[in-house]
Amino acid sequence: MDLYKAIYQRKSVRSYLDKDVPDPILTKILEAARMAPSASNRQEWRFVVVRDPKHREQLADAAYGQQFVAQAPVVIVCCAETTEHVMRCHQLCYPIDVAIAVDHITLCATAEGLGCCWIGAFDPQRVQHILDIPPEIKVVTLLPLGYPQDPSQVSKNRLPLEKIVQYETWS
Amino acid sequence: MDLYKAIYQRKSVRSYLDKDVPDPILTKILEAARMAPSASNRQEWRFVVVRDPKHREQLADAAYGQQFVAQAPVVIVCCAETTEHVMRCHQLCYPIDVAIAVDHITLCATAEGLGCCWIGAFDPQRVQHILDIPPEIKVVTLLPLGYPQDPSQVSKNRLPLEKIVQYETWS
Repeated sequence: MDLYKAIYQRKSVRSYLDKDVPDPILTKILEAARMAPSASNRQEWRFVVVRDPKHREQLADAAYGQQFVAQAPVVIVCCAETTEHVMRCHQLCYPIDVAIAVDHITLCATAEGLGCCWIGAFDPQRVQHILDIPPEIKVVTLLPLGYPQDPSQVSKNRLPLEKIVQYETWS
Repeated sequence: MDLYKAIYQRKSVRSYLDKDVPDPILTKILEAARMAPSASNRQEWRFVVVRDPKHREQLADAAYGQQFVAQAPVVIVCCAETTEHVMRCHQLCYPIDVAIAVDHITLCATAEGLGCCWIGAFDPQRVQHILDIPPEIKVVTLLPLGYPQDPSQVSKNRLPLEKIVQYETWS
């Protein structure tokens, strides 16, 4: 799929068909995540691919009852392995690096006719307990992944360019 | 350009031709950034598009002498306007949201035959002073943008999939 088409068609999917994600497609998507850039090429992203229905139910509970997390045939639990590095601009490396890799996943999912949804409302300690993730690892987002019940496009509610872009100086 | 091709071809460009970036292409790229998802659709990304040679020289100085920041015909200074929101998983929203939008920019730049480079080594206070960016705004990354001197593909040095993906549980 064309890059711009993927960017414009990507949407947050919260309702999935009862249809599994083939392994080769999942691998293709994760390979694209692997290509992401990261600070000092640290590649601190780590992914736990969850398919077991019991685990998905537990993750939905840890996501404060968001049942579509259990409905999706796959949940990619997106983590960072090393979390202490800070850039000279004072930004922590890992949230940015993981976000870039996850953005690749969401765009590739769209290109494959799949849908997903960034989940930020979850209890990280419960997720770590469910999946035996060590305490020093950070869980950044849960990403349910599957074929959308409604594949139609949605128009995006976004600020106009004039509100987000300035030229030469801030004001 | 095909999405996967853009993901695989994207590379960090640190040497640029003396050739300007046409406004319609820059606008097309920024429109794609605008389409990014964000926590609660907060869209806290803000961009300052810098073309003035004096400003670019000053930004290169603020980036600890990385001269290619001045060599690029455009520097997109990527900022966050609201920086206090935290997701229930305890992650700050703004670094992730800005990173998604900037990832869109880097991929679209590749699709347009342009190159760019995430810069994390800079003094944020100096950048804010140069461009009159208020203290409450966070500068997340500087993104020089231009036509690469060397448009050839590079092979990416990345960890194999087995090192970054686990199935069902962490171990």
